[in-house]
Amino acid sequence: MEPLNPSFAAAVAQSFAQQPIMNLIGARLDLVEAGIVEISLPYRADLTQQNGYLHAGVVTTIADSACGYAAFSLMPEGSAVLSVEFKVNLLRPAQGESFITRAEVVKAGRTLSVVRADVFAISANAGRTLVATMQGTMMCLRS
Amino acid sequence: MEPLNPSFAAAVAQSFAQQPIMNLIGARLDLVEAGIVEISLPYRADLTQQNGYLHAGVVTTIADSACGYAAFSLMPEGSAVLSVEFKVNLLRPAQGESFITRAEVVKAGRTLSVVRADVFAISANAGRTLVATMQGTMMCLRS
Amino acid sequence: MEPLNPSFAAAVAQSFAQQPIMNLIGARLDLVEAGIVEISLPYRADLTQQNGYLHAGVVTTIADSACGYAAFSLMPEGSAVLSVEFKVNLLRPAQGESFITRAEVVKAGRTLSVVRADVFAISANAGRTLVATMQGTMMCLRS
Amino acid sequence: MEPLNPSFAAAVAQSFAQQPIMNLIGARLDLVEAGIVEISLPYRADLTQQNGYLHAGVVTTIADSACGYAAFSLMPEGSAVLSVEFKVNLLRPAQGESFITRAEVVKAGRTLSVVRADVFAISANAGRTLVATMQGTMMCLRS
Repeated sequence: MEPLNPSFAAAVAQSFAQQPIMNLIGARLDLVEAGIVEISLPYRADLTQQNGYLHAGVVTTIADSACGYAAFSLMPEGSAVLSVEFKVNLLRPAQGESFITRAEVVKAGRTLSVVRADVFAISANAGRTLVATMQGTMMCLRS
Repeated sequence: MEPLNPSFAAAVAQSFAQQPIMNLIGARLDLVEAGIVEISLPYRADLTQQNGYLHAGVVTTIADSACGYAAFSLMPEGSAVLSVEFKVNLLRPAQGESFITRAEVVKAGRTLSVVRADVFAISANAGRTLVATMQGTMMCLRS
Repeated sequence: MEPLNPSFAAAVAQSFAQQPIMNLIGARLDLVEAGIVEISLPYRADLTQQNGYLHAGVVTTIADSACGYAAFSLMPEGSAVLSVEFKVNLLRPAQGESFITRAEVVKAGRTLSVVRADVFAISANAGRTLVATMQGTMMCLRS
Repeated sequence: MEPLNPSFAAAVAQSFAQQPIMNLIGARLDLVEAGIVEISLPYRADLTQQNGYLHAGVVTTIADSACGYAAFSLMPEGSAVLSVEFKVNLLRPAQGESFITRAEVVKAGRTLSVVRADVFAISANAGRTLVATMQGTMMCLRS
C-alpha cells in the first residue's frame, strides 16, 4: 500500500510515544511499515487476570494501538486516527514470556479503514502461539 | 435471573481481587447482582492515549471484566469463566473524571453466555455520558 | 431522538420497497419511528438451514435492514445509508411461526451511527423468544 | 489441519444440500478441503438492496455457511455445527457478476472454532475485489 505521508514512520513513533498507557504496561513499538505495525509487550504479573494470564483488555490494548497506527501510517500528514469499533476473538490463554501483535490494513479508505491484528504469545518452550485476533475499523480525522 | 451459586457475590468479589490488572489501573468492583456487575475507574493520566482520553483498551479492560463477572454470577459454584470474544463500539471520546461500566447478561447458557456492557464517562459538568458499548460471549468452565 | 427529516417515515418506506431481497424473503416493514424500526418475517421452509431453523444469514438480513433504516430515520433529507459493520450473537435456534426484529439507534452521529437490533421468534406456544442480537455501525452518505 | 472425519467432504456436501436457503439464493458449494470451504453465488437482481448491490445479509448468508462448513470439516463424524456469533466488515459495495466466499479455520477447538471468511465480487472488468470479511465462532455439537 502506498503511504500518503512520507514521514509516516516518524509520525507513528511520535504518537506512540504520546500514549501514556503504552508506558504504563511496558509496550514497545517494534515495527512500522506502510499499513503494518508491530507492538510487543513483555509479560508482567500486574497485567494479568485471576488465572495469571494476560488480561483480555491488555491483549486488546496492544492490538488496538497496533491497528490504529497501521491505519494511521496510510493517512495523509496532519491526520488524527481514532478507533470506531473492534472485535476480538480470544483463541487460547494468553500465557508466555512476552507477547507481540502484528496489525495489517485490510482496506484503507478515505474516512474508514479496516484493520486486522493477530496477537501471539512467545515462550522459550512453545515458540510463537496465536492467542487472539482482532478485526476493527479505524477513522481518519483530517486536520 | 436465578443464580445457581448462593455465594455468587462473594465468589465474584474474590475473583476480582485476584485480577492484578484491576489494581494496576485502579478499578473497583461497585455492584454485584445476579447477572449484573458494575466496575468503576477514576481517571488517571497514565491510562490515556495520545489525546488524553482513556485508551480504548482500558475501556475494554473494565467492560470485559464486568461482562465476565456478570456471566460468572450466574454460573454454578466452582466454575471458572473466560472470555470467548467481544465487540466494542466506541461512541464518544472517553473523557471524564471517572468511568463506570455496567454489564448485564442477555442470555445465560450452560456453556456460553452473552453479555452486554455499557461504559459511561462521568464528569461534574456533563454528567453521565455513554462512551462505549460491548457485546460479548463468556464461557463457563466447570470444575 | 429528534429527526432531521420531517418525512423520515415515508423515506424509510420508500427505500424499503426498493430492496428486492425483502420481497424475496417475504419481510415486511412494521414500524418506523425516529430512531426505531421493526421488520417482521413469516417462517418459510425455503429460508432455513439444515435443521429447519431460519438461517443466520436471513436473521442478519432483517436485522441489518432494520438497523440501517433506524439510522436512516435520523439522517437529513437526501442522505443515503450503508452498513459499515455489524456483529451478531445467535442466542437460540431461530424457530417459530414468524420473526420480528426491532432496531434502535444507540448513538446517532453526523457520519456514523451505532444501532442495536434484537431478533425475536414468535410462536403460539412459546410466545416471543429472543434468538439473536446485533450491534452495528451505519454510515450516512450526504447528497 | 488434520480432519477427524475421513468423510468430511461428503458430510459437508450432504449438509449443504440440506440448506434450503442456499437453493433459494442460488449458492453453490465450490470447494471443500480440511478447514477450508468456498461457496459462490451468481448475481441476481432479487438479492439486492436499494442501490442494486448484493444485500449485506446475503453476503453474510454465504460467508456464514462457508464458515460453518469450514469448521464442520474438522469436526468428528456425527457432529453438528451451529453459529455462535460473527462479525462482518463491509469494505466496498457488493457489485459484480458473481460472488465467492472463502472461509478458513483460524483455530479449531473441541467445542468452539474460530473461522474467517473473505467475500469477493467478480466481474469481467474489475476482476476479483474483496467486498467483505467475516470473523466468527462456530460450535460443535457432538452426537
